[in-house]
Amino acid sequence: MRFSVAQLNYHIGNFTANREKIRRAIQKAREEKSDLVIFSELSLPGYPPHDLLQRDDFIEDCRKALDEVADECRGITAIAGCPVVSDSSGSRKLLNSALVLSEGKILFSAAKTVFSGHDIFDEHRYFSPGRNFRIFPFRGFRMALTVGDDIRSEQFPGSESGDTENHASPAVYELSGQHPDFIVNISAFPFSYKKTGERISAFRNKAARYGVPLINCNQTGANTELIFDGASVTINGKGDICGMLPFFEEEVRTFSSEDLFRGIHHNDHILPGQHELVYKALVCGIRDYFRKSGFSRAILGLSGGLDSAVVLCLAAEALGNDRVQALLMPSRYSSEDSVTDALTLAERLNIPYNIISIEKPFRAFEEDLAPLFAGKQPDVTEENIQARIRAILLMAVANKSGAVLLNASNKSEAAVGYGTLYGDMAGGLSVIGDVYKTDVYSLARHINRNGEIIPENIIARPPSAELRADQLDTDSLPEYSILDPILYQYIEEQKAPAAITGRGITPGIVSDVIGMVRNSEYKRFQAPPVLRISSRSFGQGRIMPLAAKY
Amino acid sequence: MRFSVAQLNYHIGNFTANREKIRRAIQKAREEKSDLVIFSELSLPGYPPHDLLQRDDFIEDCRKALDEVADECRGITAIAGCPVVSDSSGSRKLLNSALVLSEGKILFSAAKTVFSGHDIFDEHRYFSPGRNFRIFPFRGFRMALTVGDDIRSEQFPGSESGDTENHASPAVYELSGQHPDFIVNISAFPFSYKKTGERISAFRNKAARYGVPLINCNQTGANTELIFDGASVTINGKGDICGMLPFFEEEVRTFSSEDLFRGIHHNDHILPGQHELVYKALVCGIRDYFRKSGFSRAILGLSGGLDSAVVLCLAAEALGNDRVQALLMPSRYSSEDSVTDALTLAERLNIPYNIISIEKPFRAFEEDLAPLFAGKQPDVTEENIQARIRAILLMAVANKSGAVLLNASNKSEAAVGYGTLYGDMAGGLSVIGDVYKTDVYSLARHINRNGEIIPENIIARPPSAELRADQLDTDSLPEYSILDPILYQYIEEQKAPAAITGRGITPGIVSDVIGMVRNSEYKRFQAPPVLRISSRSFGQGRIMPLAAKY
Repeated sequence: MRFSVAQLNYHIGNFTANREKIRRAIQKAREEKSDLVIFSELSLPGYPPHDLLQRDDFIEDCRKALDEVADECRGITAIAGCPVVSDSSGSRKLLNSALVLSEGKILFSAAKTVFSGHDIFDEHRYFSPGRNFRIFPFRGFRMALTVGDDIRSEQFPGSESGDTENHASPAVYELSGQHPDFIVNISAFPFSYKKTGERISAFRNKAARYGVPLINCNQTGANTELIFDGASVTINGKGDICGMLPFFEEEVRTFSSEDLFRGIHHNDHILPGQHELVYKALVCGIRDYFRKSGFSRAILGLSGGLDSAVVLCLAAEALGNDRVQALLMPSRYSSEDSVTDALTLAERLNIPYNIISIEKPFRAFEEDLAPLFAGKQPDVTEENIQARIRAILLMAVANKSGAVLLNASNKSEAAVGYGTLYGDMAGGLSVIGDVYKTDVYSLARHINRNGEIIPENIIARPPSAELRADQLDTDSLPEYSILDPILYQYIEEQKAPAAITGRGITPGIVSDVIGMVRNSEYKRFQAPPVLRISSRSFGQGRIMPLAAKY
Repeated sequence: MRFSVAQLNYHIGNFTANREKIRRAIQKAREEKSDLVIFSELSLPGYPPHDLLQRDDFIEDCRKALDEVADECRGITAIAGCPVVSDSSGSRKLLNSALVLSEGKILFSAAKTVFSGHDIFDEHRYFSPGRNFRIFPFRGFRMALTVGDDIRSEQFPGSESGDTENHASPAVYELSGQHPDFIVNISAFPFSYKKTGERISAFRNKAARYGVPLINCNQTGANTELIFDGASVTINGKGDICGMLPFFEEEVRTFSSEDLFRGIHHNDHILPGQHELVYKALVCGIRDYFRKSGFSRAILGLSGGLDSAVVLCLAAEALGNDRVQALLMPSRYSSEDSVTDALTLAERLNIPYNIISIEKPFRAFEEDLAPLFAGKQPDVTEENIQARIRAILLMAVANKSGAVLLNASNKSEAAVGYGTLYGDMAGGLSVIGDVYKTDVYSLARHINRNGEIIPENIIARPPSAELRADQLDTDSLPEYSILDPILYQYIEEQKAPAAITGRGITPGIVSDVIGMVRNSEYKRFQAPPVLRISSRSFGQGRIMPLAAKY
């Protein structure tokens, strides 16, 4: 038996494009004499469709696409992911299903049984859990079919918290009792720089524990915030990796069941380094956001600081240097070095740029506001005006040229609210809003790994917003080497303030930092979508009450 | 037996304030010789705590507050709402519980069994469903205790889609089989102008169907977007309303069981008119957002148009005219009438105002951008610059004076993206972002019901953004009398485009409008929190994919 893993990049709701992509993969698999071609979770509509799943017309279009794909399966069998309405027991349920299609028919289906109830996942909002565990006999083999986290979960179906009453056991446990020859899992696991390795280890452990070979077909490509890393794997019954598809790229690869059962393995050198993965994830995130939104041109404010330098490099890699434009907008507080370094970078990357001083509109605002501000001292108001003038200039050039403004806020400053709403927090996409400042340095070193691209001065200069004379980030914030571990423990690990520890961390600093995080929820509420690379990014995955006190 | 319904307004996570409020209500109930005082759903932390429910320290603080409230219950029994960790069957579950407290002890608990899986509700994210239905014997009565939608639901616990396998029946059905003398339901139902009447009818039907008196204690007050309307009711076993607490206000009211069982009723004149309810809801929403965020002053751009006029009236009512400030920012395209009408309104309401022309900064931007825009025609870019200059001025005055900018976008323009991101879409709170333009007119007439406050000219003048010469909304949009019914059917009713009908509605107009809705998802992603008065508002209750095609 031969099978093909089709690791593809879907466009949500674009049934025409998704179906064509699936059709070509079926064609390729057939040419490679495959018996079975496997697509990822919710492959027909693309994952995640969010509230489109609440629309009857959308579900109807999913059903039509499913029928059409089934019709493509001539002389071959496919496994595809699609939402399916079940009307059993008199009530309407929507199931997140894996369907076995052949010769125009749906031969078999299995529905996801376990939903993650935290972070970005909201499947309880749309789906009912499946509860039937059956084996599908295929070409003399007994195949088990699961969806998403069913393959890893030790939880019980229909409950995110291990409710054991009146319930079946975890999917893989139930299925393994029926002695399958192999398990196919279809998924849309998003990238998380700490979790990707864990995920592949969990697959290996699961295969070894039950002694059953395992095939995971994962979605690749980004859909707005979520970046799906691909890295589909085939694992033998001993838990060894037989084959692994690339990270963040499409591929249709054909295997033979003999390979899988023989257990040829390559456990080493399979995972790229963390910084390389984050870099690739962000490039993929930018590229797909533009492509799937119908935009091709990006604009960016280049300050001479580290964040915008890294974002410029990522954007140039993702879109091509001819599709990225930089705007330098010095103020009376900008250092000459910042401007020089920014120019050096733009020239090295061969990125077109313009320089517009913000002095003229800044003066116009100062004059207009002088009567209202008479007798009041300059404060953060004047800093915000400057940041917002830059946003106006950037958005004006973006509007006139049909470009999208890229946001360059990092996760550390987004977390503590060290940024101006409608100013440097503006943009269509936040590229490094899930990357802590200390990790932005690592990204810069990764970019410079084969020679200096980002000028060393930019990396070495102490971070500054340059919105008043001699300003430094450390005037308002702890050193990033202290700030970032506090933020990580508070946000990703959800530790209580008293439990947050580390070098240089005192209860007073923790209390100050957490105060800043709480007081800036309202700013993040209006932030652009953030490319997610961690287990907890700002946005949909972290819903905090605003008018609260905790 | 005497019982008190304590309809209170909680501050999320502010355990000190919530506990003190509860303590005073217990005190009052005791003075009124009550045996039982009833608080609403999740009353200890306030509803909705969102992802604070994922923090162990928060859950621990809930438990402490619960112990303290139990300790207050001397000579009286209380029913309070609190998240409770259950460790039964070896796995950790969080339950949305109603707890019976007396003499320092927890005597009984019942957990919510049914979660709404749509719109703003995300309880599946945090809670496991309860599955135990028991009667609590109290002072010789058999009391049934339920939480939230359990009282109305015909669904089966643990499933939002009516999964009947291995499950109990709906809560009220199960409990009614045990012949309770009355049912206590504690809730946090948010206001929705079409649903409040339905909710009370559903209570009446339920009580009549099972022949059991029913007490519903509902939360009141607003927590950011969500406005809880109170309107707690006691209903006799025939389905007649015995008593009803006010809308949007706190009250602790004591009843005797004799009243409840005798069935004195007042079914008439209980529901205020729709426009009055919407008006009160929005005033409550503004007031609580400010109070609970620690702000007292608001600022608003006053254009001479209808939307900002209505928002100014609402803000003056909510905060007092001395805490609201208006900024008039005419441009070269502003009509003289607009300015005059805006001034008339500000003067009638005795609101302090300033006038700043945007001409000077607009010219500065035009000059700075001239080299980049050489040879290009004016377009929406120049309109956006003007709207964004106004946002800079408003935010500058807000920053300098510690005020919050109120946003005045209506739901119709928010839906079709007829607004400038970081311009007129800016603000800390969107006051009428869930009110269609045609309903903004109704609100204006409600405001003027006892005499003209909003100048008739403002109501009569054709809507215009005044961002270019002789501009009218109808240059870009259908008449609001056609637009709004299309939007309502598409957004609230989730109808397929082909199913959208009505006077003056053609397939071409529907297609254009839906295209505008889809193409502006990215703008709404960055919009301020919207006070919710409908069954589907923009924000958390409507999660749409951005880089999608549907």
